Amino acid sequence: MSVLDEPLRFDAASLQASQGAARVTLVGAGPGDPDLLTVKAARALRTASLVLYDHLVGKEVLELVPRTADLIYVGKQSGHHTLCQDAIIDLMVRLARSGKSLVRLKGGDPYVFGRGGEEAQALAAAGVPFEVIPGISAAQGAAAMAGIPLTHRDHARALVLATGHLQGEGDDREPQLDWELLARPQQTVVIYMGVGTLPVICAQLVAHGLSPDTPAATVERATRPDQRTVVGTVASLPTLALVHQVRPPALIIIGGVVSLQQLLAPSACAVR
Amino acid sequence: MSVLDEPLRFDAASLQASQGAARVTLVGAGPGDPDLLTVKAARALRTASLVLYDHLVGKEVLELVPRTADLIYVGKQSGHHTLCQDAIIDLMVRLARSGKSLVRLKGGDPYVFGRGGEEAQALAAAGVPFEVIPGISAAQGAAAMAGIPLTHRDHARALVLATGHLQGEGDDREPQLDWELLARPQQTVVIYMGVGTLPVICAQLVAHGLSPDTPAATVERATRPDQRTVVGTVASLPTLALVHQVRPPALIIIGGVVSLQQLLAPSACAVR
Repeated sequence: MSVLDEPLRFDAASLQASQGAARVTLVGAGPGDPDLLTVKAARALRTASLVLYDHLVGKEVLELVPRTADLIYVGKQSGHHTLCQDAIIDLMVRLARSGKSLVRLKGGDPYVFGRGGEEAQALAAAGVPFEVIPGISAAQGAAAMAGIPLTHRDHARALVLATGHLQGEGDDREPQLDWELLARPQQTVVIYMGVGTLPVICAQLVAHGLSPDTPAATVERATRPDQRTVVGTVASLPTLALVHQVRPPALIIIGGVVSLQQLLAPSACAVR
Repeated sequence: MSVLDEPLRFDAASLQASQGAARVTLVGAGPGDPDLLTVKAARALRTASLVLYDHLVGKEVLELVPRTADLIYVGKQSGHHTLCQDAIIDLMVRLARSGKSLVRLKGGDPYVFGRGGEEAQALAAAGVPFEVIPGISAAQGAAAMAGIPLTHRDHARALVLATGHLQGEGDDREPQLDWELLARPQQTVVIYMGVGTLPVICAQLVAHGLSPDTPAATVERATRPDQRTVVGTVASLPTLALVHQVRPPALIIIGGVVSLQQLLAPSACAVR
């Protein structure tokens, strides 16, 4: 496709309602294992003619797309976007207006830390018809495969999902998290994209009152054949993650539910 | 099946490791639409010979099970369990030990408010091999179909899932929720099974500092053909839900993301 060579700009003023634009389907690709796509998402991929996909979409998922279809990689690796968010939106709008139905494929669930909300908002503002197909989020895949239930009457009254993605500029960059929220007792906290800032996260949680003995884990490459779990406590996890060289994509899971891992998934590749 | 006529008791002491027990597959049935099952869950159902299912599992999902298979309804309607949780666990363990592989089918995701964690724990303690297949949780289905993204940079730094299910006895029963957690700003809160206690929930949130103007919605029967959304604010939602006779199963969604509903799903059946 030559479309990436053209200058791309997201011009909100130009996004007036357009009659007859083709449909954009925002599809959740799930956590990696193609068997964890929904039936509806798998069907959308098998019938796609044009797919825009992100960094975290598994290769096996892309193999469902017909060979005759066009695949456009639009990046979205933390700190290294192939196209910026506005350019992705601009591209989607222009393709749809030119009559090309397309699948916008995002890791996990488009409406859970995938900026699907922003993309849907821009499509709606531009009058482009769209549909959203939810996906299994990484936390759910990790829970099932690593043996860490996200809720449990003995351990958690609530489940909190947040992102450890860095905000700000230069040396002052740190995750913009509500530490008081995350440090509350009797809940499960899952932090997406937080492995790079794990020491900051654990230190802040303890500074805000969470017991350093609270069980905590990282789950790397959730649901993929080489998934790996590192289990410790809020105090020990940063060192363990360093020793075992945990790399993105990985989730951080904090709370009493992590103590069930050894019972529920003893055969999972877990290190302590 | 005659098994339900036998006395059922969950005796933890009898749950010693049993060699050769058949496998239990804990399957997330998703929010209702059978197309939102994962590919893996649909396959497990199509090849099942024995299925234990809950109240919230959609009829269309059960239709995937072969006609030759045995289906056992084990209830789990709020306040009206056909079998209590211990009896369900006991039944699963006994069936597995008698060599019957079975699918334990739960609405949504077994590890997100489904007591899947407790069931997995009992199976593991009894030495029964099991597997967990995650499912699209009701919040994800509601978000996609009602046009309410669960996260969004302009509105939410975190997503909090909790249950409004009543705890305690008699007149003192009220949802056991961490009000300070739920009343924090800049997050999306989704409350499962909370419609019956919606006035208490909204009053407590305001009492703990949440602005009464915070956008709030109920999504009834998420992803089913008769899905219905009621949109208001934390102040107005209890009255709106009464006027429009919102009934379980329904979710409560609170936060700035609800303000996007009208733009993102104008054709959804929403009332204000």
